[in-house]
Amino acid sequence: PGPDLSARAGAADRNRELTKPPGALGRLEDLAIWYAGWRGSARPDIRAPQILVFAGNHGVCARGVSAFPPEVTEQMVANFRARGAAINQLAALAGAQMDIHALELDRPTDDFTQGPAMSDADCLAALNAGWEAVDPGADLLVAGEMGIGNTTAAAAICHALLGGEAGDWTGRGTGVDDAGLAIKTRVVAEGVARHRDGLRDGLDVLARLGGREIAATAGAIGAARQLRIPVLLDGFICCSAALCLLRTEAAALDHALAGHESAETGHAALLQALGKKPLLALGLRLGEGSGAALAIQILRGALACHSHMATFAEAGVSTG
Amino acid sequence: PGPDLSARAGAADRNRELTKPPGALGRLEDLAIWYAGWRGSARPDIRAPQILVFAGNHGVCARGVSAFPPEVTEQMVANFRARGAAINQLAALAGAQMDIHALELDRPTDDFTQGPAMSDADCLAALNAGWEAVDPGADLLVAGEMGIGNTTAAAAICHALLGGEAGDWTGRGTGVDDAGLAIKTRVVAEGVARHRDGLRDGLDVLARLGGREIAATAGAIGAARQLRIPVLLDGFICCSAALCLLRTEAAALDHALAGHESAETGHAALLQALGKKPLLALGLRLGEGSGAALAIQILRGALACHSHMATFAEAGVSTG
Repeated sequence: PGPDLSARAGAADRNRELTKPPGALGRLEDLAIWYAGWRGSARPDIRAPQILVFAGNHGVCARGVSAFPPEVTEQMVANFRARGAAINQLAALAGAQMDIHALELDRPTDDFTQGPAMSDADCLAALNAGWEAVDPGADLLVAGEMGIGNTTAAAAICHALLGGEAGDWTGRGTGVDDAGLAIKTRVVAEGVARHRDGLRDGLDVLARLGGREIAATAGAIGAARQLRIPVLLDGFICCSAALCLLRTEAAALDHALAGHESAETGHAALLQALGKKPLLALGLRLGEGSGAALAIQILRGALACHSHMATFAEAGVSTG
Repeated sequence: PGPDLSARAGAADRNRELTKPPGALGRLEDLAIWYAGWRGSARPDIRAPQILVFAGNHGVCARGVSAFPPEVTEQMVANFRARGAAINQLAALAGAQMDIHALELDRPTDDFTQGPAMSDADCLAALNAGWEAVDPGADLLVAGEMGIGNTTAAAAICHALLGGEAGDWTGRGTGVDDAGLAIKTRVVAEGVARHRDGLRDGLDVLARLGGREIAATAGAIGAARQLRIPVLLDGFICCSAALCLLRTEAAALDHALAGHESAETGHAALLQALGKKPLLALGLRLGEGSGAALAIQILRGALACHSHMATFAEAGVSTG
């Protein structure tokens, strides 16, 4: 289903009547009209945002691609549950429901330089877990992730689907040094070369090079599309999942905006490939959904103005 | 008084212990440490933000520089009081106290192409009104404005203090057409030429080319500096007031950050002259303090993370 064109037109009409010079709220006006269309109301509010955090482990960590050991994935899941992580604070600030899904952390994906990261069945299970995790009552979705090694998987997805050199997509993630970055870049190149003949579409790429949390993110974005729940995309990992969707269906991301531009290498180019202009660019590179969670407040501001400002007629203000 | 260096160092120490890779929260980390220094606490929260809106009228409107008639200033003040404007919605979202100060709206400044916009005494009274308007109990300040004609005054201030051509600083404001923009540019050039010999410092420029709401904004920013209340600067008008302060005292804006980059011509260059990198760039050009009010949420997000995340030790997370 697409946006409600009548609600969108109603929102555009209302926008023209609000007590401000035409266009003076800039992108906030576009955001409000876009959101109105997807929610089917010319004057909507955000009342029930949902933040999902998917966690997964990566066999490719054995190659020394991360600055942190793989057990940190599980430790951070405990930190999410104890409300100690950055995303917990940003979720509280946004008044968002936060749900954490740890995806078989004791069964990492396989090292994608040796074979597919996931079987098709495992990938499908993760996609389905993401799909089922979306609350049909939510009116905005952020899908975040945690998974030591997952910038390596995301870089491989981008390299496979967008070309260029492995180094164009491989960044420092949680902070590898120069030697680690060289290893990581080589691993990304190897992985894509290893699977070149089996990468027919976005779902192949997701299974062979991705990870459970990346597949779950793709599933959640897809479910939101069906439910007409607008999505704010997070950083490099989240957008690599979105890219896999986009390559299977050209309209798959019409309900999604880029919450922010991450400092991770390749995210700016990935956003360009998705055709999305970020709302924020504050140098974040944490994942967890943190950048998109922060962007909820921008969308909230847009809707506060759109849905609650007085019109020229109501306020008795001259229209110039 | 400057920032509390011990609180700032304590905040920097705390930042290094939080459960995230070093630097992964990007500018949010810098924001939190900066705010901690000015508030004198290594782990602060924003509890009492204040948004001031100063309104003034401009004699230069007689020259046809605005798309809206001057009575809109007073109409919009009524709209602020009735909570119908954009800034009201953004203040509510930020949980901010909002105070509106209409500055002698029935006595516009004089047309600065004919003589000084304000006498020194009038300018001083407006500066003082701004200074007195700051709540000493506030822990964050946004100074917004409303005044039909005030982008003309702000452009003249920038042209006088930063040079270039009048056209570099003159934009469409609330939306003048090409003919109006040509008139406005000529008026800015005329005004600066008229006063060239009397513009010895920032305060001269403020009185001769500015306006009451611009002077009040400068006064409020100055008071906040004394009270160690951090300031988020708004758009072109607010920053033109800040520029006048900076030209009288090099450290006058150390307690201020740029809330956003406005779409108004000249604001990007003005921010560069102030040495401030904006938090947001969403194409707003409304004034009222709207862009800075939206940026409160970014600073809140920074402090939510800084002051409430768990440390590695608290969460039992490996440090890599």
